[in-house]
Amino acid sequence: MKNILLTIAYDGTNYNGWQRQHNGIGIQEKIEEACYKIFRQNLKVIGASRTDTGVHALGQRGLIHVDTNIPVDRIPYALNSVLPEDIVIRDAKEVPEDFHPRYSAIKKTYHYRILNEKFQIPQYRNISAFISSDLDIHAMNEAAQHFVGTHDFAAFCSAGSSVKTTIRTIYEASVQKQSPFITFKVAGNGFLYNMVRIMAGTLIEIGIGKKEPSDIKDIILSKNRNLAGKTAPPQGLTLIEINYEI
Amino acid sequence: MKNILLTIAYDGTNYNGWQRQHNGIGIQEKIEEACYKIFRQNLKVIGASRTDTGVHALGQRGLIHVDTNIPVDRIPYALNSVLPEDIVIRDAKEVPEDFHPRYSAIKKTYHYRILNEKFQIPQYRNISAFISSDLDIHAMNEAAQHFVGTHDFAAFCSAGSSVKTTIRTIYEASVQKQSPFITFKVAGNGFLYNMVRIMAGTLIEIGIGKKEPSDIKDIILSKNRNLAGKTAPPQGLTLIEINYEI
Repeated sequence: MKNILLTIAYDGTNYNGWQRQHNGIGIQEKIEEACYKIFRQNLKVIGASRTDTGVHALGQRGLIHVDTNIPVDRIPYALNSVLPEDIVIRDAKEVPEDFHPRYSAIKKTYHYRILNEKFQIPQYRNISAFISSDLDIHAMNEAAQHFVGTHDFAAFCSAGSSVKTTIRTIYEASVQKQSPFITFKVAGNGFLYNMVRIMAGTLIEIGIGKKEPSDIKDIILSKNRNLAGKTAPPQGLTLIEINYEI
Repeated sequence: MKNILLTIAYDGTNYNGWQRQHNGIGIQEKIEEACYKIFRQNLKVIGASRTDTGVHALGQRGLIHVDTNIPVDRIPYALNSVLPEDIVIRDAKEVPEDFHPRYSAIKKTYHYRILNEKFQIPQYRNISAFISSDLDIHAMNEAAQHFVGTHDFAAFCSAGSSVKTTIRTIYEASVQKQSPFITFKVAGNGFLYNMVRIMAGTLIEIGIGKKEPSDIKDIILSKNRNLAGKTAPPQGLTLIEINYEI
């Protein structure tokens, strides 16, 4: 038996998130189906992050515990041969027995993309949030700096999650033009439920001028979800990378 | 009656090109249906460029001759309210009676996007061509310079088109990294059938090392389609802009 850590990219448009919550199909399920076809074993894929419906990934991680003779570096090719075209295994490597894709993670990086044009550009509609009001990128970037550090992010957490603590550490945050998008990049030791999308929604309100950059400090201190902005739409969000010490 | 020039963006993934050729639905047809809903007239939309199945546009142009009281600047909003989400009218303006969207064009700009990674990134699969072999961007850019100028591009034209002349003028051509893509940008006074995709396919062969940058000169002189590279896949191509003197 081997512990194999998969690096997974997907287009979340046609899935009901990583883990199926209500109706529809989850990405996890599709990978478990592919594992059955390749390994002839009913495996459970333990994901590092439960991305929502419509959210994308370049570097999701999933752990499988499997009995196989397929060389580890060939596993991505084997699984990709039976996966649908909107899910791709980018890497596989063996990890120690006590490794956990969620608890062993030391850093996660997300990007949130905004298309800021007068009219929508259809080819980008599933990979960005569309905002037609002029956004002040400079103010948004200034605001994003207030996220950096160790804070109680209760104001940036949707109801319905049960976590021991709402304290998280943000290592980096920035908003910059990356043509054709405005991109909010954020990295931290962990994120609460909908946290990046609520951060993005709050930054959008700052970009439009409804809030000031310095309001971020007060919103964090308030621990009040109602003072932060709306949860920005899922299609703008991509899970870029998850880092481990190993 | 007014002559209205529309600027049109679309995601070509789910259409059988601008103009329906065989089965399936053309983008032109969808805009004509939207025009009927808004203007209650059976209009013909005369397109500037016949993009193929899967090819995208940011700046396609279409001309309609219409009797309407809707202010010209409101026409995009009216049409967008009844168009599917993968087609967007970005602008409308009145043009003279003798204006023709194809014959009056003085410059067209296309971008061809390549995703050059070991594995496909699913969220980009419909807006780029995927190449897993390492590409030499410098060699590709050097090769692209040989396209610039007035040449007989018969070697870069698919069979099945009937044009008076295969001579075209290319104003600019470059290949550059535009993360996450490698982008071939080309502007000219006009393009032959599949010309940009054959140029892109030839540049890819140069990037892989199957051809040399200087081969472009000989391929142009040969006027032989068989010496150029394969027609690169449609999803990498976007019609960016069409310019007129007015």
